[in-house]
Amino acid sequence: MITREQKKAAQKRAAAMIRQAGISTTDAEADRIEVADFGLNNLDREGVQVLTLVQTERISIKVLVMFPNQTEPEHWHPPVGGDPGKEETIRVIAGTVYFYVSGEDTFEQGFIVDGKDGCYTMRSELVMKPCDQLTLAPGEKHWFQARDEGAVMYSFSTIARDALDQFTDPNIERITKVVDE
Amino acid sequence: MITREQKKAAQKRAAAMIRQAGISTTDAEADRIEVADFGLNNLDREGVQVLTLVQTERISIKVLVMFPNQTEPEHWHPPVGGDPGKEETIRVIAGTVYFYVSGEDTFEQGFIVDGKDGCYTMRSELVMKPCDQLTLAPGEKHWFQARDEGAVMYSFSTIARDALDQFTDPNIERITKVVDE
Repeated sequence: MITREQKKAAQKRAAAMIRQAGISTTDAEADRIEVADFGLNNLDREGVQVLTLVQTERISIKVLVMFPNQTEPEHWHPPVGGDPGKEETIRVIAGTVYFYVSGEDTFEQGFIVDGKDGCYTMRSELVMKPCDQLTLAPGEKHWFQARDEGAVMYSFSTIARDALDQFTDPNIERITKVVDE
Repeated sequence: MITREQKKAAQKRAAAMIRQAGISTTDAEADRIEVADFGLNNLDREGVQVLTLVQTERISIKVLVMFPNQTEPEHWHPPVGGDPGKEETIRVIAGTVYFYVSGEDTFEQGFIVDGKDGCYTMRSELVMKPCDQLTLAPGEKHWFQARDEGAVMYSFSTIARDALDQFTDPNIERITKVVDE
């Protein structure tokens, strides 16, 4: 969980990074940035900030903000009904992102969150810089991590059903609880 | 048709506008910007420049560039097989765009290309500025026009099949011919 105050601070920080990256956003949009700690209570270590620009029954457009050295936990987008699952293209706008997918273990530049070796099983490393893109097929396991300067990315995808995402870490709750104090 | 030289000049101009709008793009991307005159041989009057960032079997992400006072002809995205047709969200990044859709005639700030009254039948006017968005359902007729300073927009959509788009103007050929001289 995070407190209302933590959420506001993270929203403000994320909005500043989005604008710094050259992406214009309104104050109303900034106020609805999602701050996700995945129920792990350590936002700066494992978490993500998400500005959803478009969400229809067919597509979803998001700006993802990673604070310095923040890690988005390993997950995948499962089939839902007749939908094979979310197909997602990441395009990096600012910062460097270490992206991990299935394949030969080439893990080198990122780090595994302390004590969570079993929660990060994909070890094929892609070092992504601004204008680099990657398309993930439905069901493809992945996780990613920002370097020291943090990162801003677009996520262009088919319809997102975040609450149905599946995670390797059994302790994760996708929907973050926000408490008053 | 356009000449190879005209195409290169338009690509260069469009790439500069994209970068001016804060959108980073590689030189390789700039070199593949599509320049469309819709077969009307008057690019600066009726045309559009398109940088396709993502094109999969499910989604399409484009940056649309409109030169000053350039008009994109009225068109719609028809059903294709089991697909109801392209659903498209426009988000303006730079400049002002006059956008025309079905509804009450509120035409006021834009202009109709000389002598082409019958080719622009949608007259409900939306004045769109940076961060303004609009989602078009499949099949919805629309056209748009940039003001004096030109415009840069994102088009976030389900799969694009541009060659199948339908136009009110019977003289339009969607695929632009590029000739050597």
